[in-house]
Amino acid sequence: MTRKNTEQLHLGAFIVAGPGRPGGWRHPQSEDGWLTPDYYRRIAQTLEQGCFDLAFFPDILAVPNRFGGSHESQLRYGALGSLRLEPTQVLATMAAATNHLGLAATKSTSYYEPFDIARGFATLDHLSGGRAAWNIVTSFQDAEARNFSREQHIPREKRYDRADEFLEVTHKLWDSWADDALVADRAEPLFADPDKVNPILHKGEWFTVDGPLNVPRPPQGYPVLIQAGASDRGRDFAARWADVVFVTHYSLESAVAFAREMKARAAAHGRDPRHLKILPGITPLVGETQAIVEEKRKLLSGLIDPVAGLTTLSYHLDVDLSVYPLDEPLPHLKVPGVTGHYDEMREASDKAGLTLAEAGRMYANRYEGDFIGTPDVIADKMQEWFEAGACDGFMVMAAWQPGAFEEFVRLVVPELQRRKLFRTEYEGKTLRDHLGLPRPERGAWEGKSARLEAAE
Amino acid sequence: MTRKNTEQLHLGAFIVAGPGRPGGWRHPQSEDGWLTPDYYRRIAQTLEQGCFDLAFFPDILAVPNRFGGSHESQLRYGALGSLRLEPTQVLATMAAATNHLGLAATKSTSYYEPFDIARGFATLDHLSGGRAAWNIVTSFQDAEARNFSREQHIPREKRYDRADEFLEVTHKLWDSWADDALVADRAEPLFADPDKVNPILHKGEWFTVDGPLNVPRPPQGYPVLIQAGASDRGRDFAARWADVVFVTHYSLESAVAFAREMKARAAAHGRDPRHLKILPGITPLVGETQAIVEEKRKLLSGLIDPVAGLTTLSYHLDVDLSVYPLDEPLPHLKVPGVTGHYDEMREASDKAGLTLAEAGRMYANRYEGDFIGTPDVIADKMQEWFEAGACDGFMVMAAWQPGAFEEFVRLVVPELQRRKLFRTEYEGKTLRDHLGLPRPERGAWEGKSARLEAAE
Repeated sequence: MTRKNTEQLHLGAFIVAGPGRPGGWRHPQSEDGWLTPDYYRRIAQTLEQGCFDLAFFPDILAVPNRFGGSHESQLRYGALGSLRLEPTQVLATMAAATNHLGLAATKSTSYYEPFDIARGFATLDHLSGGRAAWNIVTSFQDAEARNFSREQHIPREKRYDRADEFLEVTHKLWDSWADDALVADRAEPLFADPDKVNPILHKGEWFTVDGPLNVPRPPQGYPVLIQAGASDRGRDFAARWADVVFVTHYSLESAVAFAREMKARAAAHGRDPRHLKILPGITPLVGETQAIVEEKRKLLSGLIDPVAGLTTLSYHLDVDLSVYPLDEPLPHLKVPGVTGHYDEMREASDKAGLTLAEAGRMYANRYEGDFIGTPDVIADKMQEWFEAGACDGFMVMAAWQPGAFEEFVRLVVPELQRRKLFRTEYEGKTLRDHLGLPRPERGAWEGKSARLEAAE
Repeated sequence: MTRKNTEQLHLGAFIVAGPGRPGGWRHPQSEDGWLTPDYYRRIAQTLEQGCFDLAFFPDILAVPNRFGGSHESQLRYGALGSLRLEPTQVLATMAAATNHLGLAATKSTSYYEPFDIARGFATLDHLSGGRAAWNIVTSFQDAEARNFSREQHIPREKRYDRADEFLEVTHKLWDSWADDALVADRAEPLFADPDKVNPILHKGEWFTVDGPLNVPRPPQGYPVLIQAGASDRGRDFAARWADVVFVTHYSLESAVAFAREMKARAAAHGRDPRHLKILPGITPLVGETQAIVEEKRKLLSGLIDPVAGLTTLSYHLDVDLSVYPLDEPLPHLKVPGVTGHYDEMREASDKAGLTLAEAGRMYANRYEGDFIGTPDVIADKMQEWFEAGACDGFMVMAAWQPGAFEEFVRLVVPELQRRKLFRTEYEGKTLRDHLGLPRPERGAWEGKSARLEAAE
């Protein structure tokens, strides 16, 4: 395959501040350093050697108990959410060990206050010299609500109203210092120019925030914003606010359809669609030969108990799968938001004649989009998706940490570089530079909020 | 002076994640690196060379506008709170650059949720190998309330009720994993033992939190707890919960009286009074000769506008001093909590015939307890306070950053070491080791809460 254009793709690494994929921690090459800075420093340096755009940390504010209403399977199998360090501290550790790698943390608009979040990401952006990104989630699990003194979750539509207002406030706070407000003139003296640091006096439905922020405007203007909303309102939210959309697809067709839709949505909101970067998550499984790949796959599959996979799937679907028989086909479910994905998966399972237990094992060992094979096979597929307009790059997930990132950097990245699909060195300093996104001026957020639009 | 016992004192460094003392940023030896990791890394390494117990970051959740209801003087003079990075990220940066130094951040029980705080400090304690400390504040400024969607502050008594319950919840969460719950047995497989990770199912007046935490029990059991309450309820709270009390005194007599009272309060709560460490804040001004010290003092004094000092004093008193004439003596004020300190200061000002403007300049350049002079003079005074039972050590504040810390480590620490008043190397690994505090077992917090006691 030859290159059709000179655009290059973007790579993020989806890292868990804990044991990673269920079973992945059992891999002979995995490491137990989840609680140590060295573990994260090493991953960061590996990714920077591989010229990755960014490291990305998902988050969960609870040990999930969606499967059977108990934490047991989560803990026993080290399944999703069993252990998660607070991500911004992990990123500060990574920032100190790298010079270019972008640094993304997930924070929920449902359980934090905008002053705190605006300040946290402004701090990370300064400490990293302009490499911070915020993955905005609205949260959906009752287990999280019950850790944050809420009887129940805010309903979906309301969550996005709150998120819209949350983003209005964080943007006002990031804008509360002009770019040149910090003067530090010792002779005058003038530390900061009072005329260039302004209260925001926000008074809305959810938040009352006077401001100004106590941190100067971030080097990137605003941190890079990432979103993964799947519902209609979620997609609209991403098309308005996000710089990067993180998504999961099991086929090229659905990926292309989604990317087209999102770019069109962005354009409809008056944005340059090239400034909305679509990064589907993939879990590559790479080996020097196809035979090695098959053996690796067998090894990983054997490390997973079906229940570990169903525990994770229960969380993602927000449905208790423990009530369905393990030896029957997947149940028909109406799952808001992720319905399309679940239906895709169920149809594929039925076609393959899988039981729920087998589907659980497969889910825990899933390789979204089947990026499996030797480096040239994986690079072919990445190129195919990229050139078909399915994406602007990929969010690389690791079947086990940190080894799968190291293998990807050693085997796949050089092949992408050979094809001039991926950078061989960083050209800019900030994450916006890496992503080819302009630095937003003060006030650039205005007109993005659906909540404000509806109120007009 | 010779040593009367073999006890050694403890040293903390009070560091501002911003420009520090008003005017300090104008010092020729100060640095502008407040927004860079190198600035904090260097301070951390200096303190670790000096065998300090811990680095301590105060915090403010607003740019204060108590003086004249405006941010102007705060920003213009770089006065207290004009710029403050989020402290746990700064500490994560410091943790990665050091091996022994304790790491303390301030977080308010009024504006955060206990799950978030318990998780943040558990993360810091793991990432630093057992060096985390939490300075617990209940917050008192309306400017902070107005950044966190509250019309007004919670009243003082209510704030401490909330703080009591907040600490009940964080301790339950830190205890939600047994020390040996994380097994990571790959063969079994058993990631964490479900029988040793327990929900907390807390349901109180302020918080409903199911738990468990998604981070294993901190290496120190609980992070070291620091408190600085001045009111009666604040002192009671510290005597119940705190490992370290941070306090300010202008005379040896008041320091001794306070320390005696606090140790007695701790004993009355059934605690070993030696496990409540009292660290008064001091701002040493040291020089090779007395003449150099005097010149340094003149230099620093000349860098301060009186309004910069009054801005800081207004914040500390929570009283708008802009309404009083600058050329008259200090007004008589009834200031809850800090009344004693203010009265002390006013009497001293009146005796010296100072105007409010002059007192403002002095306040900005204050040297609590007058730890001013050549290294042996300062060491004499520290020894005097220590041996008189005024304290278990000191929280060293810097007239300018980072130079004042470097001078203290170069000039004063060796003198303290020569007298065997201070360690020449770290003996343990954790902050509890440095402070001589036992590691608390699971459940060790029980019986500490005044709120629970009142409910019985």
